[in-house]
Amino acid sequence: MAAGTRRPPAKKKQLTAKTAKAKPKKVSPDGRARRPAAHKWVYLFAEGNATMRDLLGGKGAGVAEMTRAGLPVPPGFTITTEACNAFYANARKFPRGMDEQMDAALRHVEKQTGKRFGDPKNPLLVSVRSGAKFSMPGMMDTVLNLGLNASTLEGLAALTKDRRFALDAQRRFIQLFSKIVLGVDGQRFEDALDEIKRKTGAATDADLTPAALQKLIDRYREIVRRDAKTDFPEDPRQQLRAAIGAVFQSWNNKRAIDYRNFNRIPHDLGTAVNVQSMVFGNMGSDSGTGVAFTRDPSTGEKRLYGEYLTNAQGEDVVAGIRTPKPIAAMAKDLPKAYKQFEQIARKLERHYRDVQDMEFTIERGRLYMLQTRSGKRTAEAAVKIAVDMVGERLISRREAVMRVEPTQADQLLHRRIDPSAKVEVLATGLAASPGAAYGKAVFDADRAEAMAKEGESVILVRIETNPDDVHGMIAAQGVLTSRGGRTSHAAVVARGMGKPCVAGAESVAVDLDRRQFTAGGTIVKEGDAFTIDGGTGRVIAGRVPMLEAEISRELQELLRWADSFRRLEVWANGDYPHDAERARGFGAQGIGLCRTEHMFMEQNRLPIVQRMILASDSEERRRELALLLPFQRDDFRGILAAMHGLPVIIRLIDPPLHEFLPSYEDLLVEVTRAQAQGKPEADYRDQARLLAAVRDLREQNPMLGLRGCRLGLLFPEIIEMQTRAIIEAAVQLKKERVSVHPEIMVPLVSTAEELRRTREVIDATAQAVFRETKATVRYLVGTMIELPRAALTARAIAESAEFFSFGTNDLTQTTFGMSRDDAEGKFLIKYVEEKILPYNPFETIDHDGVGRLMQIAVEEGRRTRGSLSVGICGEHGGDPESIALCEEMGLDYVSCSPYRVPAARLAAAHARLTQVERDR
Amino acid sequence: MAAGTRRPPAKKKQLTAKTAKAKPKKVSPDGRARRPAAHKWVYLFAEGNATMRDLLGGKGAGVAEMTRAGLPVPPGFTITTEACNAFYANARKFPRGMDEQMDAALRHVEKQTGKRFGDPKNPLLVSVRSGAKFSMPGMMDTVLNLGLNASTLEGLAALTKDRRFALDAQRRFIQLFSKIVLGVDGQRFEDALDEIKRKTGAATDADLTPAALQKLIDRYREIVRRDAKTDFPEDPRQQLRAAIGAVFQSWNNKRAIDYRNFNRIPHDLGTAVNVQSMVFGNMGSDSGTGVAFTRDPSTGEKRLYGEYLTNAQGEDVVAGIRTPKPIAAMAKDLPKAYKQFEQIARKLERHYRDVQDMEFTIERGRLYMLQTRSGKRTAEAAVKIAVDMVGERLISRREAVMRVEPTQADQLLHRRIDPSAKVEVLATGLAASPGAAYGKAVFDADRAEAMAKEGESVILVRIETNPDDVHGMIAAQGVLTSRGGRTSHAAVVARGMGKPCVAGAESVAVDLDRRQFTAGGTIVKEGDAFTIDGGTGRVIAGRVPMLEAEISRELQELLRWADSFRRLEVWANGDYPHDAERARGFGAQGIGLCRTEHMFMEQNRLPIVQRMILASDSEERRRELALLLPFQRDDFRGILAAMHGLPVIIRLIDPPLHEFLPSYEDLLVEVTRAQAQGKPEADYRDQARLLAAVRDLREQNPMLGLRGCRLGLLFPEIIEMQTRAIIEAAVQLKKERVSVHPEIMVPLVSTAEELRRTREVIDATAQAVFRETKATVRYLVGTMIELPRAALTARAIAESAEFFSFGTNDLTQTTFGMSRDDAEGKFLIKYVEEKILPYNPFETIDHDGVGRLMQIAVEEGRRTRGSLSVGICGEHGGDPESIALCEEMGLDYVSCSPYRVPAARLAAAHARLTQVERDR
Repeated sequence: MAAGTRRPPAKKKQLTAKTAKAKPKKVSPDGRARRPAAHKWVYLFAEGNATMRDLLGGKGAGVAEMTRAGLPVPPGFTITTEACNAFYANARKFPRGMDEQMDAALRHVEKQTGKRFGDPKNPLLVSVRSGAKFSMPGMMDTVLNLGLNASTLEGLAALTKDRRFALDAQRRFIQLFSKIVLGVDGQRFEDALDEIKRKTGAATDADLTPAALQKLIDRYREIVRRDAKTDFPEDPRQQLRAAIGAVFQSWNNKRAIDYRNFNRIPHDLGTAVNVQSMVFGNMGSDSGTGVAFTRDPSTGEKRLYGEYLTNAQGEDVVAGIRTPKPIAAMAKDLPKAYKQFEQIARKLERHYRDVQDMEFTIERGRLYMLQTRSGKRTAEAAVKIAVDMVGERLISRREAVMRVEPTQADQLLHRRIDPSAKVEVLATGLAASPGAAYGKAVFDADRAEAMAKEGESVILVRIETNPDDVHGMIAAQGVLTSRGGRTSHAAVVARGMGKPCVAGAESVAVDLDRRQFTAGGTIVKEGDAFTIDGGTGRVIAGRVPMLEAEISRELQELLRWADSFRRLEVWANGDYPHDAERARGFGAQGIGLCRTEHMFMEQNRLPIVQRMILASDSEERRRELALLLPFQRDDFRGILAAMHGLPVIIRLIDPPLHEFLPSYEDLLVEVTRAQAQGKPEADYRDQARLLAAVRDLREQNPMLGLRGCRLGLLFPEIIEMQTRAIIEAAVQLKKERVSVHPEIMVPLVSTAEELRRTREVIDATAQAVFRETKATVRYLVGTMIELPRAALTARAIAESAEFFSFGTNDLTQTTFGMSRDDAEGKFLIKYVEEKILPYNPFETIDHDGVGRLMQIAVEEGRRTRGSLSVGICGEHGGDPESIALCEEMGLDYVSCSPYRVPAARLAAAHARLTQVERDR
Repeated sequence: MAAGTRRPPAKKKQLTAKTAKAKPKKVSPDGRARRPAAHKWVYLFAEGNATMRDLLGGKGAGVAEMTRAGLPVPPGFTITTEACNAFYANARKFPRGMDEQMDAALRHVEKQTGKRFGDPKNPLLVSVRSGAKFSMPGMMDTVLNLGLNASTLEGLAALTKDRRFALDAQRRFIQLFSKIVLGVDGQRFEDALDEIKRKTGAATDADLTPAALQKLIDRYREIVRRDAKTDFPEDPRQQLRAAIGAVFQSWNNKRAIDYRNFNRIPHDLGTAVNVQSMVFGNMGSDSGTGVAFTRDPSTGEKRLYGEYLTNAQGEDVVAGIRTPKPIAAMAKDLPKAYKQFEQIARKLERHYRDVQDMEFTIERGRLYMLQTRSGKRTAEAAVKIAVDMVGERLISRREAVMRVEPTQADQLLHRRIDPSAKVEVLATGLAASPGAAYGKAVFDADRAEAMAKEGESVILVRIETNPDDVHGMIAAQGVLTSRGGRTSHAAVVARGMGKPCVAGAESVAVDLDRRQFTAGGTIVKEGDAFTIDGGTGRVIAGRVPMLEAEISRELQELLRWADSFRRLEVWANGDYPHDAERARGFGAQGIGLCRTEHMFMEQNRLPIVQRMILASDSEERRRELALLLPFQRDDFRGILAAMHGLPVIIRLIDPPLHEFLPSYEDLLVEVTRAQAQGKPEADYRDQARLLAAVRDLREQNPMLGLRGCRLGLLFPEIIEMQTRAIIEAAVQLKKERVSVHPEIMVPLVSTAEELRRTREVIDATAQAVFRETKATVRYLVGTMIELPRAALTARAIAESAEFFSFGTNDLTQTTFGMSRDDAEGKFLIKYVEEKILPYNPFETIDHDGVGRLMQIAVEEGRRTRGSLSVGICGEHGGDPESIALCEEMGLDYVSCSPYRVPAARLAAAHARLTQVERDR
């Protein structure tokens, strides 16, 4: 398309000289550049640098950067991605000028190495590797030892004084080249190799004599002749051109296309090709190869960390035939090379300003650097290295903050299984609440409590949990259920308590009667100890070594820096005073969600709640509610006092009432059984009555039923009681000079009118308390935005709301029409695996759907009320990518479970810094 | 705001002389007009007309129009709504000039009537009535006979030669005036009246002698003196001022404010006051009163229709003490007045160009018209009158179309209970499928079928229905269930069949064991006949007279006119060939939704479907699907052939699979019972296995679970089979020269990727059939837009969709987070009653939430694909208000059940005509 002019586009307008000049170099389909100077298709390593990934690919840019930094890199050159694209545009022929440039580059490499390509005396051998902008592992194998033929073989043999080595190199070369470049079935070569080993009685490849190898090579050539209908190319230049063409072709093989589709990599990037002179670590005891980190990737300690092998090639280290030595041993074995390597490591770390993971080879005492990249590291190491490097003035605080992933901070806050430990996984369920726990299996809550009192560590195992199990969960180290999703009772309660939980482990067969479970063929009986890992969902046999949670000095420091960069506040979800205290300890700036229904579920209150629900009229209901009032007031006193000076958002009752009643199914079975057994009716009359009541309350789709503010509009007396409890607690505390900031949140609003009327009840109740107590306290009223319609009508809803809090879990469920509990067990995992969804929208906010609704709500809500405070209190509040979205949308805060607060602080800083960067 | 100039608005810009002139008269708060001329507060009836409702109120504008038309209306005048507002702005005092204008108007009325206000000889009496722009029944009662006092009483008595009449008039006046204007408790007067009747031994009011009435009047005066602390006003002018003030005040009494809040009438409209000279129909045998229609409001026949009473007042007709005579009798009784009335009726009809409902009074042979308004009429009458009036060149075709409500057309298409019949309602459930049915109660499907075969009319009564009941539903005249909502199985299937259904009648206690139900204290046993009315939800005792459905010649004509005005196409939902034929007969232009799952539910297929669902692997599933293929192909052949030349949208399988399996609850009870009774395990092994399978498939919120396109992505073989059946049927028919237009619709899409992949399977299957049959057929692929996310990402979805069809039922459920089945039984009715929602969003599309999503989908979908066809196939497709919204949004078609097609054609015409009017 024409570009550069501001006039309205005219069809087929001729480019002016000026606009033509401004355009990037245009390459015609046959690869001929429009400009007279020949296009540059080939770059020596010394000509490139790290920023040229688009043109040279990741690998090419990397070796170029090292070369540029003066490191001893085996010389070579890169053929550009543009050449690859021109190849395709030009009927799969090399673009004009490429051959000449390649020859020139080769001459340059010959000069640097003192060897010559195809020289029978002193042959230059090269490797040929693909290298696209983004790493595409397995797209094409590497061709090594290219340049070998009958005559250069002799040169290599003479030069290395090792004919066997040379023959083996040639054998490997023919095998790889024929398979990759000529498309011969690799199995044929394997068969031939096996046959010759059998015939010569060689146990391993290494036992093959030179004579046997020579025979094998002859056999390989025959195979090529027969299958590829051509002689194996002897001319090194022909070999090279064929290998490069094969790399270009491999960009569009099925495996590569599938990989790109899967990873959403554009198909028009093309791949570069790297041609590099070979070096050999297996040329005797003054040769060797190894890998090393500039710092300990496990602890972050500042010392070289790695291993190496003498007289070996990289493959040998990987194959594990010989045990490598620690890198420190090299100081004795090869002191000169070691010293040089140490210097290079320091230099590389300074150059890249990060821990480097390096590969090197020593050929006859001479060190070559083959690769360097940022080193992967553990969470501890990441934190320590980032903070240390600030101390060493290597990086800024801002960079340090950006160097540690929020998930890494998260890991440090839970006891976890030592990553180096070998474990026997019995089953895998949902990672419902992070952390690892070890203990004896128990199958009911009472027994869990009893054993815990005797000082035992226990893990509560249930099919599903319900409110009756809560005391057992409190007593246990962790919880395992065989049914239910990440929002099941077990999962939600465990997360709130910060206890490890594996939920919905469907392959765990729980037999409550026999007090045992079976998983992976193992039977675990009551009292047998085992381990769960709530961070990965694994159920593990026996005891495994664990790492304790800690907030190290370094992490504290890093989080303080993060706080100074972030704009988003981080609040916590918590239902109890001890949650609030913990959250504060982790740096929470408020309580974003205090769920009142968990308070209803406690053992001493549930019977009152049940009587309240089954009340036949409003008067009876009020009587029971009056009994609940003191409990609720105490709950709120506790949490408001713990958050002294900070806001606390209390959500009014949300779940459908039948959640507080016994299970319909259990009652049905009980009554049916009693009837079938012919028991007198009086024996089960109460149960039958309860069954009828529960049946009445039952819903086909309880998530979309009578819950949230709908309850309050039907039974205003419930929210009157809750409001009274909140306001009375706040007034009491204020009199005791506690600084209280209660905020009352109305759930499941779908119309402005619902909120307006609910607010009327709240305000009237608060006014009544103020009159009675002759005191006032400032409180806010706001609402969850958790239904699409609430977001779409935010403008009207904001008229009655001082704050919005996105309930992104329900919002995701309704926006997608997908129940999390039902979806995760049945199809969501497949959806994510097969990339029907790019990620699980219950873990990371769906940008296009849910995000768009949130954006509408934020913009239109604030248009009505400029001072509207907007936050998020769903599970997504602790997810880094979702936090980034919240930053983009200009939310005021995110609220997550207490244990995720530190990670969220870090994520909020990341989000802000990224946003600032983007806005530049 | 400044108006009239096109320049950018300047703040506080002075009005130019020209723009100031253009502004409406501005009234200052104290009622003093800015302009020197006094503001006009009072209009004689002769000065107003029908267009002045804002100023004169509905009633004032009406009598003015009649007066203007030269009809004999008792003279009077109207005090404007502006006067009312000025009254409030002026500390509840009449605005300046109003008194004088009132006096002048009164003088005018005196001149016209020849009577004088307060004249002891020939007194003018008046009525005082409120009259706001919108009718507000019961806001304020009328004061009659105002102007009576001790002296004018004598005049009235002398004039009427009936002292008793005069005294009774005065008694009534004091009673009404004191209650309404002076605020005296009305009960006091009733007590005094009762007392004097007791004392004088009078059985009725009419038995009171003049002496007793005089005594009563004295007693009334005492009551006023004591309770209102004032003498009853004797001065007629004072009476009048007080009455007018009271009317003004009544605008802001609680009852009126509540009414306006409820009906969303603005509070600043104010009310007008009508003062009209009294006429009396009870002045002897040459007097009378009556009501009449210009045409028969029941049949539409063109003849005067109504009734009258001689020597009576309007109240007497209403009270029903005397039986009125048909209006025709007046021709003999009062021939002159009758002739005049006939002429007036004709004139009024011509003037208003519509049937008039008139009130009149004859005072001593002289006819007075008191009121005229458009006459309410039955559906038949509405159609006949509209079409007749076009023939009479009274109205245009366009007007005729607008005169008939779509719901009226709808009524005519179902057998219905004669509106004049007296019925005993036993219970009321949900109006689930319209029409009335009469038959004997039966309690299971087999028996229903058997009895129907013997020629009996039966009504199937069930707690809920399921697929096993379908043959019984086919055999029955109608269906009654005690549980389930408007989207329950019974409701959906009955609507599809066009059979009456009352669903979820919770007060009907069905006892399947005893084969009887109890409702409203009545027991209906099997074989007892009763009636249901699916249009109102009533369950009625015994047999009642019914009106048969018919599409009259006039309705046909009207619908043809409607077709010529509408832009929206009207399609129908139908699953079977006979649905399609019926729909075509009603004028449907395509099938907008053919649900394939109902085909699965038929008795001979269900076992195959169940085996398919329970298949352990894809191969087994394919085997069962192969058995289903011929059935499905025949289904599609049938419907495609029936719609020859028109499009048929076939939706791929949608419901969760467990809907095809036996109920979990039933199985649980069965297995539990067998176990409890100690039966050998072999006896119930199959049931236990089935129970386990159903438990696995069960979902907590099935509406949000594994259904729709999710099924097809998990089990592509199902949609392969369905696509194959559709395409094979289409290819066969095409070879038989049938013009087929199959469109395949993918349900429950929430992401573009779901549709893209499903489409791949559909297209690949179609191509395979084309290859096998060596033929092709044009088909479209599209999707339901029934989830918020689908609407929000319509731009991407339209890339794979050739059409969108809004599934507004599910879209409403997810947008509101509200399950229709659960909500309608529990809180939705209350929501609508209490105006938390302005209307039921499952009947009429929610404009602000669901409508906004639809708008987004239409606009953004069409941006991607200009040719995108967009329609709606939910229940809303037949709702007139929703059709209007579809017209506004520019949809291409609406699709509804076959029986609603005629009404939808009319509604589409209404919508278009209204839209055109608005765009003018």
